[in-house]
Amino acid sequence: MVYGYTGKILRVDLTQAKVAVEEPPDEFYRKYMGGSALNLYYLLREMQAQVEPYSPDNILAFSLSVLTGVKVSGLSRLTVTAKSPLTNSIGDSQSGGFFPAKLKLAGFDAVIVKGKSANPVYLWIDDGRFEIRDAMHLWGKMTGDVQRAIFEELGDDKNIEVLQIGPAGEKGVRYASIINMCNRANGRTGMGAVMGSKNLKAIAVRGSKKPSIADPSGLKEIIYTGVQGFKSKSIKGFGKYGTSSMVAVHNNMGGLPTRNWQSGTFDAWEKIDGRTMYKEVLQGADAGKQDSQGRDTCYGCIIRCKRVVKIEEGPYAVDPKFGGPEFETLATFGSYCGIDNLSAICKANELCNQYGLDTISCGSSIAWAMETFESGQLTKEHTRGIELCFGDADVMVRMVKMIGEREGFGDLLAEGSARAAEKLNCGKEFLTTSKKMEAPAHMPHLKKGMALLYAANPFGSDHMSCDNDLFYTEKSYKFFKERFGDLGLNSPSQTNGIHSEKIEFIRLTQQLYSFMDSANMCMFVWGPSWTLYGPRDMVNLVRAVTGWDVSLDEILKIGERRLVMMKIFNAREGIDSKADTLPKKFFKKPLKGGSTEGLVVDESEFKDALRNYYKQCGWDETSGNPSEETLMRLGLDLLQGSQSHGI
Amino acid sequence: MVYGYTGKILRVDLTQAKVAVEEPPDEFYRKYMGGSALNLYYLLREMQAQVEPYSPDNILAFSLSVLTGVKVSGLSRLTVTAKSPLTNSIGDSQSGGFFPAKLKLAGFDAVIVKGKSANPVYLWIDDGRFEIRDAMHLWGKMTGDVQRAIFEELGDDKNIEVLQIGPAGEKGVRYASIINMCNRANGRTGMGAVMGSKNLKAIAVRGSKKPSIADPSGLKEIIYTGVQGFKSKSIKGFGKYGTSSMVAVHNNMGGLPTRNWQSGTFDAWEKIDGRTMYKEVLQGADAGKQDSQGRDTCYGCIIRCKRVVKIEEGPYAVDPKFGGPEFETLATFGSYCGIDNLSAICKANELCNQYGLDTISCGSSIAWAMETFESGQLTKEHTRGIELCFGDADVMVRMVKMIGEREGFGDLLAEGSARAAEKLNCGKEFLTTSKKMEAPAHMPHLKKGMALLYAANPFGSDHMSCDNDLFYTEKSYKFFKERFGDLGLNSPSQTNGIHSEKIEFIRLTQQLYSFMDSANMCMFVWGPSWTLYGPRDMVNLVRAVTGWDVSLDEILKIGERRLVMMKIFNAREGIDSKADTLPKKFFKKPLKGGSTEGLVVDESEFKDALRNYYKQCGWDETSGNPSEETLMRLGLDLLQGSQSHGI
Repeated sequence: MVYGYTGKILRVDLTQAKVAVEEPPDEFYRKYMGGSALNLYYLLREMQAQVEPYSPDNILAFSLSVLTGVKVSGLSRLTVTAKSPLTNSIGDSQSGGFFPAKLKLAGFDAVIVKGKSANPVYLWIDDGRFEIRDAMHLWGKMTGDVQRAIFEELGDDKNIEVLQIGPAGEKGVRYASIINMCNRANGRTGMGAVMGSKNLKAIAVRGSKKPSIADPSGLKEIIYTGVQGFKSKSIKGFGKYGTSSMVAVHNNMGGLPTRNWQSGTFDAWEKIDGRTMYKEVLQGADAGKQDSQGRDTCYGCIIRCKRVVKIEEGPYAVDPKFGGPEFETLATFGSYCGIDNLSAICKANELCNQYGLDTISCGSSIAWAMETFESGQLTKEHTRGIELCFGDADVMVRMVKMIGEREGFGDLLAEGSARAAEKLNCGKEFLTTSKKMEAPAHMPHLKKGMALLYAANPFGSDHMSCDNDLFYTEKSYKFFKERFGDLGLNSPSQTNGIHSEKIEFIRLTQQLYSFMDSANMCMFVWGPSWTLYGPRDMVNLVRAVTGWDVSLDEILKIGERRLVMMKIFNAREGIDSKADTLPKKFFKKPLKGGSTEGLVVDESEFKDALRNYYKQCGWDETSGNPSEETLMRLGLDLLQGSQSHGI
Repeated sequence: MVYGYTGKILRVDLTQAKVAVEEPPDEFYRKYMGGSALNLYYLLREMQAQVEPYSPDNILAFSLSVLTGVKVSGLSRLTVTAKSPLTNSIGDSQSGGFFPAKLKLAGFDAVIVKGKSANPVYLWIDDGRFEIRDAMHLWGKMTGDVQRAIFEELGDDKNIEVLQIGPAGEKGVRYASIINMCNRANGRTGMGAVMGSKNLKAIAVRGSKKPSIADPSGLKEIIYTGVQGFKSKSIKGFGKYGTSSMVAVHNNMGGLPTRNWQSGTFDAWEKIDGRTMYKEVLQGADAGKQDSQGRDTCYGCIIRCKRVVKIEEGPYAVDPKFGGPEFETLATFGSYCGIDNLSAICKANELCNQYGLDTISCGSSIAWAMETFESGQLTKEHTRGIELCFGDADVMVRMVKMIGEREGFGDLLAEGSARAAEKLNCGKEFLTTSKKMEAPAHMPHLKKGMALLYAANPFGSDHMSCDNDLFYTEKSYKFFKERFGDLGLNSPSQTNGIHSEKIEFIRLTQQLYSFMDSANMCMFVWGPSWTLYGPRDMVNLVRAVTGWDVSLDEILKIGERRLVMMKIFNAREGIDSKADTLPKKFFKKPLKGGSTEGLVVDESEFKDALRNYYKQCGWDETSGNPSEETLMRLGLDLLQGSQSHGI
């Protein structure tokens, strides 16, 4: 058995047009593992506080992990981290696809980018070699065209993967995404805009190395467990509809954000649900990695959760190359905007993948504008004649384009809803943002864990940062003991409200998910209440790949370390507990209609929960900042500047 | 079995007259363990670079370790660390006695002192309680009087231990020591002067707590091993003569520095050797912790290596309260100065313990002055009439007092020989200093490991920083395989010179000794070529006391971490490989007389060895600074300022 891990990190200075290779020792990888934690290492060490997000001094870090490249389901993921132009706090986002595995097989664990190129460039990483190439001819182009051009230029469309920004990233749309395969997005927190500010148009990779496996027979056992799980569990339904069937689930419980969160029930939900999508717009097999049921997958993954849609003609014609909408996208361009036109939603999704836009912040900003317009606070003078009304699919699709181009009123919405409200000084009561980032389509009115984490999460409201607290009962989740027992969680003694036991559930699963975002593991495959694997399998996987004798404790600690590193980053920026809150709307405006009529988030319950959470985390109850002891426990006590910023 | 370690650290701010308690988590103790490594943690984190040694901003750190207080031989030791006024680099020094164990049993692992008191004070730590007390009435007094006064004031002379500075520390003699029990010294690098600059006269402790032991039966086994070893091994001779019998050993091989290192052979060696001391001046039983054979011991130690001398009358009358001279002291006040009067040496030793002076730097500075005087470069004008001649015992004793008082020419020698030579611009060719610290009595001409480490050691020439390379053969050391095999060292294929294999021996035993100075273990008990225990026992001891599943690897890493932390400290001060050298005298002036007639240290062999050593350590071959990878490997990569100082 080969012990330990060796890898390479690419250090790119775009100002100097220089690339260097760093080879950190085994200990480094064991401590940070990859993903956000590894990225944050560089941000915290090498970036001063108070750097402007679009300054060349902002560091844009792309990381895989020690596991990436191994052919097991749910391991081909990439994390991008930088200071966010949307939140001004830490920015962080994950994506799947083939790009992550390919970058690893090209020989690198991470690409850390500093500086700003004088002219547009792209980075070409070819099986251990690398070069910075001119991208002047690609600037201003949509993702589909750029991918084609790069394939042609490099003379290979079979083995190359392209990660890139679209025009939205070039133009600094504050929630611009980074796209790979034209249909996978590092969507949230505006990482694409940071990439644009550096004049870095794309990263193309080709790789044929093999990942090293310390214990191949141990790995085989894990794969076998997964295959058995896949055969026996409800995961197959997930394979059929992907995330899109969540429309029905959420609407049924009155938790589908509708007309900018005025209601949790959308009458026309069925028109935008996964079953309808499956019947009406899912494409047949005609793209390389997509199968005959219109499903696409990530490298090495048997789940095939990605839907691919195709609309041949009409105003909403969609090219299957750009994938299909996930649940979040169906909600933000659908129910958020009161729109039941599935084709229009698919078109908006395609445009987001062409321009490089986060579908959540984009759809949500449009929905905010619609509510504000209908309230009369926003007028045609502001919008230059556009009537922004709920249910108007044409206007919605038009707004997506205008945001991508920063054209007319789109230029304002490109700043995100919170900044738009500030600039126009209107519609503030309609905002659904935490730390200026728009909330995803899981309602904290019902999912109370989300109430806590939308507020407490260091990079703004996020729905992927802990396990789904709907599964916080034995009744609702039959594997509770098996999966969560490993985390030291007992069967809940009460299930209502957001009490101490539930906060523990949130906190520990948050650490586990935070580990997954450092190891770059997919929550749909590895998240305990999901599908194939539980926490024990995760431990066995790390052991099998690296040979490290890790424990579940160590794994949770990596997750905790990532979170605390984010907290330190924010503290340096002057962001503390005061920013850990929810939009007023959630507390003040009762939901209208359906089974959740009249519901609000209980503000005092929320505040108590937040304090309790800080306490459980070992963070200061007033500032929310980690204590010196917590830093020591996580091996972060030597961190530059942590002292001088009062952590 | 109770897992892990919890402890308390006292944080003292003398400027604010405030004391606080810190309780670092288990992880912190496991990483730094105690001693120098723990002290350096605070120095590196909380002290800016380029602080003046006598500035209130210098941090003076006193540390025990997770092992201190356990009743096993060789564990009652204390490390003091601060920026050194003698070397301007890191200062670090260990002592034994009862004080270390008592401080632990009073509830604390360390006392970290910042700032400067407006008036003289002492710290009183009484079984978990603590207070800063006035010491105005103690200022200016000798250690014996101060200890008596504190006992009286606190009303207990049985259970209190006092650690203090004498007048030399108050007056900023650059090699002032810190004394406990009136006869144990943190001697080297001038830590007493730093204590004086803070107006901190003493620390008194009383403690009755019990140390926690994770595995008492495991600990019993270790104690049994030690007792068996004590019965069977040559250690008993060490018990009889202590270090004093080394006079004969060193002289026999031509390695006893004589007349300021002009020769390695002292004709009158027998008059100052341990056997003579045993016969002539060792005292009978009349002091509490001393036994009927004139031996004294440290808390819990069966070795009893401390000699106690008593001289009833005459000019060199000596009170047994102040112990007796160690080998180093016999050499520096004896052969270094060409003096064969054992009583005078004992008196000089007593004065050093009364004034709080390092016997090595003190004797050596006087020897330097003698050679310079005899050369004619130093005249009676400089010395204000004193004839500083080799062999003059009266003058030597008088100079010790004058240094302690900073009186007349003593005021200049109180600066150390290197600064004295600079100020007078003479006698530079007679210096025996590395990093401005005087060399101890192990000659690098013969002990080639010392040639390397006198130069490379971060706090100046030190003889306690690796195993004795005289034992670097199977022939000379019968336990070679058993003790050094554990460190991965093979039986040497060649024994002469300072080749790669031998450098590995030095480097690895340096790491082991560096660990001992973090765990605060006595080298006479735990050093592999010494007496009772080998490296495996060390691992078992840490396991038994803390419950941590440490390996020998982890232990060596702690030692390496301490060394690298010292290197980082020095790099911040602008001290790098240029300071890693030996006094010119060692290279240029052949020894005179005896079996080592004509011998010098081979300069080109030395330079090659130093480069080889850096390389083996993973340090830059030019600057001597640890690489980024080394920092990562040791978990020091997040260290504040390590980057900006080019490490």
